[in-house]
This record gives sequence, C-alpha cells and structure tokens, in this order.
Amino acid sequence: MNIPFLTQDLKAEYELRVSKVRSQMQSGHLDAILIASPVNIFYMSGCIFRGYVYIPADREPVFMMIPPSQAPDHKQCIAIRKPEVIADKLGEIGYTIPSCIGLEYADMLYSDIERLKKCFPDTEFADASMAMRKSRMEKTDYEIVKMRQDGLHQAAVYAQVHKCYKEGMTDLEFQIEIERVLRREGCLGILRAAGNRMELNMGSVIAGDNADNPSPYDFSMGGEGTDPSLPVGANGAILKPGTAVMVDMNGGFNGYQTDMTRCWTIESVPDLASKAHECSRKILKRLEEIGKPGVPVSSLYKEAIEIVKADNLHEYFMGHAHKAGFIGHGVGIELNEIPVVMERSKDILAENMTIAIEPKFVIPHVGAVGVENTYRVTSAGLENLTVFPEDLTEL
Amino acid sequence: MNIPFLTQDLKAEYELRVSKVRSQMQSGHLDAILIASPVNIFYMSGCIFRGYVYIPADREPVFMMIPPSQAPDHKQCIAIRKPEVIADKLGEIGYTIPSCIGLEYADMLYSDIERLKKCFPDTEFADASMAMRKSRMEKTDYEIVKMRQDGLHQAAVYAQVHKCYKEGMTDLEFQIEIERVLRREGCLGILRAAGNRMELNMGSVIAGDNADNPSPYDFSMGGEGTDPSLPVGANGAILKPGTAVMVDMNGGFNGYQTDMTRCWTIESVPDLASKAHECSRKILKRLEEIGKPGVPVSSLYKEAIEIVKADNLHEYFMGHAHKAGFIGHGVGIELNEIPVVMERSKDILAENMTIAIEPKFVIPHVGAVGVENTYRVTSAGLENLTVFPEDLTEL
Repeated sequence: MNIPFLTQDLKAEYELRVSKVRSQMQSGHLDAILIASPVNIFYMSGCIFRGYVYIPADREPVFMMIPPSQAPDHKQCIAIRKPEVIADKLGEIGYTIPSCIGLEYADMLYSDIERLKKCFPDTEFADASMAMRKSRMEKTDYEIVKMRQDGLHQAAVYAQVHKCYKEGMTDLEFQIEIERVLRREGCLGILRAAGNRMELNMGSVIAGDNADNPSPYDFSMGGEGTDPSLPVGANGAILKPGTAVMVDMNGGFNGYQTDMTRCWTIESVPDLASKAHECSRKILKRLEEIGKPGVPVSSLYKEAIEIVKADNLHEYFMGHAHKAGFIGHGVGIELNEIPVVMERSKDILAENMTIAIEPKFVIPHVGAVGVENTYRVTSAGLENLTVFPEDLTEL
Repeated sequence: MNIPFLTQDLKAEYELRVSKVRSQMQSGHLDAILIASPVNIFYMSGCIFRGYVYIPADREPVFMMIPPSQAPDHKQCIAIRKPEVIADKLGEIGYTIPSCIGLEYADMLYSDIERLKKCFPDTEFADASMAMRKSRMEKTDYEIVKMRQDGLHQAAVYAQVHKCYKEGMTDLEFQIEIERVLRREGCLGILRAAGNRMELNMGSVIAGDNADNPSPYDFSMGGEGTDPSLPVGANGAILKPGTAVMVDMNGGFNGYQTDMTRCWTIESVPDLASKAHECSRKILKRLEEIGKPGVPVSSLYKEAIEIVKADNLHEYFMGHAHKAGFIGHGVGIELNEIPVVMERSKDILAENMTIAIEPKFVIPHVGAVGVENTYRVTSAGLENLTVFPEDLTEL
C-alpha cells in the first residue's frame, strides 16, 4: 500500500495537517477526533484505506487499518478487525480514552456513528465534521501544488473541447467526447462531494432551453438530464445554431479537484447572451482584485450583485426560472467545501483558501453563459488556478 | 418535472411498491416511514426530487417537495420549505403523527437523521433502512423489465469491447474506450451503491499482476488504481501478451443496473487460467439450475465452493493474496443490494430477486478470470439478464 503520510518527504506536511485539526479541536472543545470517512482519511493520510484515524490532543495520531487494508510496520499504525476493538487497542499503547470524542456527524451514516458510539460506552460525543471542514478550508502549500496540477490538466482538456464538437451533435454526444479527453488526461472519473444532493456523472454540459430546467441537486446550474433517475445536465437535445453551450466538467486528477466552466456558441448568439457573458468576466475581474485575506466572503457576493444590477441583468443571474443562492464555493478534496460565497456568509477570506467563483446567467432559449474559475486567496488578490481563455467563441 | 408515480399507467406499479413497504413496516413494527435518500425516493416515485416521502400504515403516502423541486397539483403532493414543517403539514391534511416512525439509519447522514428526529419531538424512531432494502429485494415485473433493458444495453456494449482494444494499450486506455461506448449506449455514468465503501468510476478493468493488488473497497476484485485517492481497478500497466483482462463495467442505464463481467486474453494464457475460467462457467451453470425460490442463498455459496474444491482451484478463488467473502450480491437501484451470496447468509431465494453471481479467480501474474451475470430468480432456476458469450477469447 502506498502510504504518503509515512514517506519522509511528506512527514512535515501531514504533521501540519494534524496541527490544523488540533487547532479546530481546541475551538470545538473536542479532546480527540475519530475519523472514518474516505475524504478525511485521505486528508490525514494521503491515501484511502479501510479503517480509522484517531487524533488525540496531545499524542501522535493512530492509523487503524482493517483488512484488506494492511497496517504497515510503524509505531503509529495498528491492524484491527472491527471498530469494537479500538478502545482496547488504544489502551494497549497507553492512550487514555478522553471524555469527549468528535465524530463526523455530517459525513458518516447514522448507523455507522451509532456503532462507533457504542465502542466507547463512557465517553461523550460531539460533531467533528465542521472541525474537519475548517481544517481543510485553508490549503497547505502542498495542497495548492496538487490543485495547481488539477487546473493545468483541466485547462489542457478545455483546450481540446472545440475538437470534440461536430455539427448536428447532441449535448450528450458532445459531453461524452469531452469525458474521453478528460479521462485520457488523467481525470479519475469520480466526483467527491459532501451530502446526498450532489449526484452527477463526469460533469455538466447544458445548452439552449435545457439551461432553464431545474434540477433537485445543489449545483449552481440545472438541466433535466436524460433519465428521471439522474435529473441533471445534458438532456440529449441537438446543439442548434443560436445556442450557448456551457461546459462544466470534472476537474479531479489527484484526489483534489478544480472547478472550471467555459462556454461556447453554435454560430452566433443574441447580444443579450454576449453581454451577460462579458458581465460574468467583469465580475470575476473585480473579485480577483478585492478577494484578499480579511475580506468578508459575503462582500464578494454583494459586489457581484451590484455589477449585475448595474448591467440590468439581474433577471438572468444564477438562473432564470430557478435561481441558485450562491455564486461560489470552496473546493479541494470535495467539490462543495466551505466557504460558500453567498449573501449571508459569515466567513472571512484567508490566505490559501481555494474558491470556485461562478457568476453565471441563464438566457431563455439561448442557454447558459458565464465563466467559472478556481482561485487561491492571496494577499495580492485571487490567483486563478484554472487559466484558460474566457471569451465566448464559436464551436 | 417528470413524475412517473403520478402517470396513469404506472399507478398500480407504485401502489404495489407501497404495499411491499407496508408489509415490511408491519414486520418491523413501524407505524410510518419517512424517506429522504435519493435511492428510496426514486423507488417510491420513479424520479429524484428534493424532499421527502411519508408512508403511513393506513393512509396514502405523501410526497413533499422542496424547491427547486416543485410539487405537482395532486392531493398526495405538498410543497414544503424545510423538514421542520413536515409534522404541521401532515396535520393540516388530517394525518396523525404516529408513535414510531422509521428513518433510513443506514442510508442517511447522522446529522440529517438527527435533524429529522427533532421535527417530531413526541415520537420514537427506529431504523427503516432494512425494511426498504427488503421491500426492494424482490423486484416487481416492471422493475424486471427495466433490468432486462439494462442487460441488453450492457451486452450490446460488451459486443464492442474487442473493438476498443489496440495492441500496446494500457488497461486504463482500454477502459476509457469502453467507457465511451457505454456512454454512447446510454449508460448514465454514475454508480449508486450503499455505504461509504464503494467508490469507483465507470467500472473496473484489471489485468496481469494488478489483479492481485488489494483494494480497501467492498468490490469482489481489487486493483491498485492510478492514484492513492482512488485505489481500485486499472493501474495504467500495458496489456502484455499472456495476461487475462477482466472487464467489469457499469451497467446502469435507467435508474436500475445489471452487473456483468467478461474476460479476454492478450494472446494465449497458461492452462491454469483457462481451467479456472471454465470452472467459473461450470459454477454458474450449476447455480442457474439450483437457484429457485425456497433455496437458501448460502447453499449457492456452498455449492460453488464444492465445485472449486473438486477442481483444486481453491487457492485462486475470489482472489489470491486477498479473498472476497462473497460470490454474489443483490443488484437493482443500488449495486450492493441484498441478499449477499455468502456462507453465513440467512436469506432464502424468492421469485424475482435479482442477483449478480461472480465466481472469479485470480491467477498470479496472469490476471483475473471468470464470468459474472445478473440473474432473476424464477421457479425454473436462474434466468440470465446479461446474455453474452462467456468463453475466454483473445482480444
């Protein structure tokens, strides 16, 4: 098993992550955290294994592997068969079970949490999901390198999007060709997202009337999909002249992901669509300037709304028949990380937060337009990790 | 919104499902079930919407939609903004809140269940996940039609697998070409599975040494994957002469799925691999005969083991370095439904259960061989829904 956290050159990186988690534990009055979700196992170890990670306040974290995941020969690693032995195993290596353990309430199934609670009969429990999300919110320099790689791969794919198009294609046929390019570029082909409202295949291509179809999921844009069992994205309609085609495809290549949208047109589109697309670029340009550590996340949202109103495009912003309540979101191991860029956000921007900003417009009967980039927050403003031409060009 | 359960020709179908759920509610001493997971929302309605389905013992079920999902104008449908209003809304239409409500403990996040519990302060709760799984275990005739469609689509894709291969390709490149064919055939490109141990992109292609690499997930076969963030399946190795290539790709086209595996070889493989492949076919043939309503699921497992032992192939069965503890599983809306075909199963086969049976062998340095079909249980034995040649042929 490839275990990044045990390699010498990543030792400091994973110690840094432990210290970030401990700082959140302290704010949340947790004596320890016991992690089991794939996303947080990956965050703490750099790989996915079957088992648990136990992080106490003042001792080294313990990695517990359940077969077929094998515990390497290392003092911080223990082989276990089931969670019921965790307390005893920790006792054997001299760890005292503390009075309050944090568990991932928002990332684990109810039955799995109940099972874990029974393993520690004399302990109290509290939610550790928010502590883990906050730990992951500001990326380490190493994580930024990973996300920069994602952005380069994703841009390399978008550079081939125009080659994927053939006249008379459906939106879905177009998407399938992009999927192939993505996979050949190294995209892993899964979407990690929190909660049960983010089902999607490898991405979303929406065009024409379909852009105005609502979807039950928590994505910024909708689309009816091709089957009632997955009502999102491309619906199989032929890409007709006069429509705008929005391409928002998977950016996950290495356990992290970037989120990126570009739009193309089939022949020419009405001026309203071009104007809205330019408004999206104007918003991003302005937010790139003002998005610095210390700035309230809500001010990004408010600034965007001001620009939209000045251009008299509010009717179309973030949807037409149905509107999303946010214009951006944190992104990293999961697609929907914190902070959420919305009006009532209480978060403050900090160095190395990574945020996808997606001011989009739905123009009835034309389609969706706008640009989405994934940014790193720096003291000089937002640094774009998904650099690629942003203009609306013909396919 | 396309709402199958409200269409006249599917009315009887969805009433049948409600009666199946009620029968399980009675066995589980539940007065009502409140459903929120996408999988069970889809089962009760035929579509995915944001919201809840409430199924009492003696009144009609109520479908509660949260925007952007819109409640159609129908007496069984109610628009709500959040779960906190459910009790009041049910009261307004004359429904009494019962003393015990079932919630999906094994399909919902801990925090979501806790939130629902707070919405009914004077009610007790119990697990409804098993009741829903048991309701879904024996398919309706309509569901069988859906799964038959899946099997036909999947077989049509497998008929094109040999065209996806080019000499010198890696396993991953080969898989990507199959993915494209799958998507063009209508595969939706997502995998619905219960629990947090089933992460996978569009399927698994494993070959050569990689077949013996363990994976932390609950699939029958492993593979190291191409990144530690998704350690399963193809690992990017070139497909070399003398290796067996196992193709176990996504079979979901309409909300249901079939599960199907076929193997090919690169030039010729050692006799041991051919013998093991024939043993797999022998097992399937035998189980097809004996798999009838009333037969214990465990006897399928035991019969398979007897055949393997008679052929002296136990060392390679269901893995070599690491072994899976099951040879099959229920399949339907989710890939890992009940029953699980394992030695200690207490389930009894019943008409219209749909079960994937996958007697597979890992031959060191050669790869994995064997056949997987999805079957319907009938009084005449197992009916194959994934008909396609089963021999081991050269790519």
